[in-house]
Amino acid sequence: MTTRRPPQGVDAAGQGPLRRRLSPEARRAQLVRLGVDLVKVRPFDQLLLDEVIESAGISKGLLFHYFPTKRDFQLAVIAAVADELCSRVEPDRSLGLADQLRYGVDAYVAYIEEWPAGYTAIVRGAGSDDALLALFEQTRDALVDIVAAPLASRSTPVLRLLVRGWLASVEEATILWLRGTPRACERAELVDLLVRAGMALLPIIDEILEAEATP
Amino acid sequence: MTTRRPPQGVDAAGQGPLRRRLSPEARRAQLVRLGVDLVKVRPFDQLLLDEVIESAGISKGLLFHYFPTKRDFQLAVIAAVADELCSRVEPDRSLGLADQLRYGVDAYVAYIEEWPAGYTAIVRGAGSDDALLALFEQTRDALVDIVAAPLASRSTPVLRLLVRGWLASVEEATILWLRGTPRACERAELVDLLVRAGMALLPIIDEILEAEATP
Repeated sequence: MTTRRPPQGVDAAGQGPLRRRLSPEARRAQLVRLGVDLVKVRPFDQLLLDEVIESAGISKGLLFHYFPTKRDFQLAVIAAVADELCSRVEPDRSLGLADQLRYGVDAYVAYIEEWPAGYTAIVRGAGSDDALLALFEQTRDALVDIVAAPLASRSTPVLRLLVRGWLASVEEATILWLRGTPRACERAELVDLLVRAGMALLPIIDEILEAEATP
Repeated sequence: MTTRRPPQGVDAAGQGPLRRRLSPEARRAQLVRLGVDLVKVRPFDQLLLDEVIESAGISKGLLFHYFPTKRDFQLAVIAAVADELCSRVEPDRSLGLADQLRYGVDAYVAYIEEWPAGYTAIVRGAGSDDALLALFEQTRDALVDIVAAPLASRSTPVLRLLVRGWLASVEEATILWLRGTPRACERAELVDLLVRAGMALLPIIDEILEAEATP
């Protein structure tokens, strides 16, 4: 699971220079929040520290105190994006399974739709960076946990393969759909399609769990 | 579709220095073939031109005549890998649908199994390079054509979304399976799982095609 940091002290993020004293934890969170806002409107690799410094009203030295390198800052921003995504797709657990999936897929598509170019660039470019790849692994694992929670009391390796496969199909189809001009279908149809593709796996998952329960 | 070059003149590839005269087309194919062999045993970004030059028994100048930059050579090698993959997964069209899928998935898993680290590195690292990304798009489109061929006389955009999603799930699950220590299941079980996940989409695909056929 990725850790989810409480958004303490970030309420003023993006509202112009701030020179008031913040606790180290609050300052760090504020800087990451600014980074998340920026990464959604410009390419990830063009994330400019100067812009963050100016928005936060701090010195370059203070930024480097929290994030010794630009890479450290970028990783913290991507970790925050991953946490945000996981929070958004977490469904109300009192819903039925199909509705939980629908909620999650809908939230996921909506999240990517907010910043398609940036999101796609991060996903497709992860491979060039070991730390980023590790973060992606963690995030995918966390998403599998969210999807698998109502499926089984414990998620077995084979079940996880299948769920991660489905998650990859959701991501791929969503990225492709966003790039389509014109789009292949309405947003609601895409979500419906992906939910049905997930529900179609249930008989296979039931069989896996049954086979594994049999000694 | 990616173009598939005939493997003319590549029979002697990898069998030590060759100094005989080859036609330009055969020489180019030989060099690419050497690159494909090398990329399967070492990381893609460490593909050394010196090694290719030595194996082919040619001068650096001649290599640069065919491939002006290292990047050109790398792209030609990846294009050849993509063609090889597409050829391998093309099933016997006289088989039933499930058997066509099984043949393709089995061949795909076997292909990645040949060089898991290298394959994964290429797939995960594509995003950092526009030309490589374009090549991946073409390859994925070619794979969708192969899978969709027996499904419908014409592949509609929504059908393609679903098939590409499934292909992404096959890739993701296979990469995850290969990394597992111990592996989550036997090879045959993985293939079976992925084929069944594909077959489970058929009712959804039928509905899409019916809905689209209705004016």
